[in-house]
Amino acid sequence: MTAMHTELPANIARNLAVNGERLWASLMETARFGGTPNGGIRRLALSDEDRQVRDWLSEQARSSGYDIGVDDLGNMYIQRRGTDASRLPVAMGSHLDTQPTGGKFDGVLGVLAGLEVLRSLDDAGIATEAPICLVNWTNEEGARFAPGVMGSQVFTGDFESGFALSRTDADGISVADALDAIGYRGTERCGERRFGAMLELHIEQGPVLEAEHETIGVVEAAKGQIWFNGIVTGQESHAGTTPMPLRKDALSAFADFALAVERIATTEAPAGVGTIGVALVGPGSRNTIPGSVHFSLEFRHSDKTRLDIMHAHARDAAKLISQTRGCDIVLEPIWSKDPVQFSPEIADVIRTSAADLGLPNRSMISGAGHDACAVASKAPTAMIFIPCKDGISHNEAESATPEDCTAGANVLLRSVLALAGTAT
Amino acid sequence: MTAMHTELPANIARNLAVNGERLWASLMETARFGGTPNGGIRRLALSDEDRQVRDWLSEQARSSGYDIGVDDLGNMYIQRRGTDASRLPVAMGSHLDTQPTGGKFDGVLGVLAGLEVLRSLDDAGIATEAPICLVNWTNEEGARFAPGVMGSQVFTGDFESGFALSRTDADGISVADALDAIGYRGTERCGERRFGAMLELHIEQGPVLEAEHETIGVVEAAKGQIWFNGIVTGQESHAGTTPMPLRKDALSAFADFALAVERIATTEAPAGVGTIGVALVGPGSRNTIPGSVHFSLEFRHSDKTRLDIMHAHARDAAKLISQTRGCDIVLEPIWSKDPVQFSPEIADVIRTSAADLGLPNRSMISGAGHDACAVASKAPTAMIFIPCKDGISHNEAESATPEDCTAGANVLLRSVLALAGTAT
Repeated sequence: MTAMHTELPANIARNLAVNGERLWASLMETARFGGTPNGGIRRLALSDEDRQVRDWLSEQARSSGYDIGVDDLGNMYIQRRGTDASRLPVAMGSHLDTQPTGGKFDGVLGVLAGLEVLRSLDDAGIATEAPICLVNWTNEEGARFAPGVMGSQVFTGDFESGFALSRTDADGISVADALDAIGYRGTERCGERRFGAMLELHIEQGPVLEAEHETIGVVEAAKGQIWFNGIVTGQESHAGTTPMPLRKDALSAFADFALAVERIATTEAPAGVGTIGVALVGPGSRNTIPGSVHFSLEFRHSDKTRLDIMHAHARDAAKLISQTRGCDIVLEPIWSKDPVQFSPEIADVIRTSAADLGLPNRSMISGAGHDACAVASKAPTAMIFIPCKDGISHNEAESATPEDCTAGANVLLRSVLALAGTAT
Repeated sequence: MTAMHTELPANIARNLAVNGERLWASLMETARFGGTPNGGIRRLALSDEDRQVRDWLSEQARSSGYDIGVDDLGNMYIQRRGTDASRLPVAMGSHLDTQPTGGKFDGVLGVLAGLEVLRSLDDAGIATEAPICLVNWTNEEGARFAPGVMGSQVFTGDFESGFALSRTDADGISVADALDAIGYRGTERCGERRFGAMLELHIEQGPVLEAEHETIGVVEAAKGQIWFNGIVTGQESHAGTTPMPLRKDALSAFADFALAVERIATTEAPAGVGTIGVALVGPGSRNTIPGSVHFSLEFRHSDKTRLDIMHAHARDAAKLISQTRGCDIVLEPIWSKDPVQFSPEIADVIRTSAADLGLPNRSMISGAGHDACAVASKAPTAMIFIPCKDGISHNEAESATPEDCTAGANVLLRSVLALAGTAT
């Protein structure tokens, strides 16, 4: 990456701030594209609602005189020009698509705060050396077309555009056709653009900032994951006639294992987590001792070595419980993803910005995947988190305060400006 | 009850035995009525297959000259006359209906061994003082018409015949209509008959006799039961972003509770058992921490006081786990049944018979419900268990050896004869 300019001129440092009311108004205004009666948003990737919000964003960009680019995956690039032609753009952004019953902030905040940053620079009459590029990444949620984090992963070459374009939704409509239908299949080749840095502002989607009364999370890494399918096999038998010592109860063995998973993950807290989200008990009859439990298991950790250790401990626990109980516990890994280390330099810029603004902040590790996790392999990247109510997301009840949204946008503004350099 | 005659004359004691080959042949012959390709039986109560086996039994009884009665619930009484008109009949029996994928022995053995007992007395030319009455109880399984143990519970007045006759199957056919359709709605009022004693030979449906290499279980009681619906409520949240210490994982709380149930029941083993057969985890998504678990719970014990203590301990455990984990565990009792104490005198007769035959035997408590559990409230009653392979029943793989069936029938023969008294 190019050298960073992390000191803001004193006059700018004192006065520069986003227009929090305008940011909030834009969040509320765009929330009507796919708005639900319960105050959430249903704006599936490349749907007509997605087209509406994209058109709205294009119109805002046009009226401000920014350059607009769209690549062949529909990723939108809205660029405010810089003064130094040799500098790569500083990027910021997130996604405007939502879950089927999503909220108003997940993804949306990162894009609209980026727009607010560009406008605030206009308002303050500040020119930057490097261009600043706001990105709306296509299909982060993966709710209509799997896999998610699609536009940014094609951008980084994690998978081929041909693969992504041929994915279909439940009605058999391909990504390519959906892009054509809404007029967002651009001519620029996805991945051809380069960035000097990338920042993503996002709600935390977890309870930590709220619980600790911090406003800003400086996100230094994202957890790696390993997913399993598991089966406990015991012996189905009569609940009334089988004495306790002669049972091979698959549900009891599973309960032992579930608590072992919890202990393994708690030992690695807070960087490590472990979750069993699915458990299907067979045969599922009131007076039959369960003979089987099919379950899901996932571990996440920011450190690959510790993730592997969690996996090994889970295998040890499964083996021990199998032996002790005369049951059989099998774990089959089905998917994994290495942890992502964000750029320490970008994280430092974010931390400095938050401190300059007097905002209580802490280092964090993202437990969820984001566009920034993909982009980190191609440009120095870090993320900014703000609190969300009760840690809830992917839910119509998802909520963040205007104050926290403004604070996050101000940190984004200062960080982007520090990285792009003022041309004054 | 009338006085018992438990000493057999020495000449009879030495030589009397059932014809084991004839018993086995009758088991195999009747297994074709509803026989399945996998070697099981599908003979739902009052189906045409049930009619076929009832007709077969009637024909056997007629050809041997026994009296045949059928009551208005379809219970069949096949009586071999005694010499003393003042004595109440000694009854024995079980049921000929099966589960939808049932085996060849559950219920069937108790009826056909009873037939073999009558035939063996004929063969040996033995007259008894009291009549001996073989009963085929209607709809023990409850698979087509709920509730089960129907004929014997109407017989004892546990519920009204009008209630039972109006129960319908999945096609809306009532018990009354089904009885008419197969020609087994008799004119005798169900419950009008009285018995001096009742014995039921049955496969154990559990693993104890097989595990301990015993041939005969002298069943002295049947466990009482209490059934619950339970709900664990935690807090649904993101599996990646919610640190372990901030979770309210309903599945972890449920696992704690399931192991507490197991400990409570194990403390009461072997008389007490506790089982969670059903557990439904919500929302059941791989990367969402479970917010709820709906589950079933049942405890059984032969001692009502201990059953109540198990219940109390489960409530204590639910409360403690709820407090510790910030989750909520609610238990709702939905059904209960007190333990049944069988007649110690009848049990002694069975024990003596087994000992006289040199058969290894042990006292047992039935964990399942049987016709004998109902009849016990109306006549001195006890049960005889024989081993079944791997403790499996309600399954086409249900299996018992010819030797054990013969041994059980011999114990039944001697016990019935001892109770009825020889008229020589």
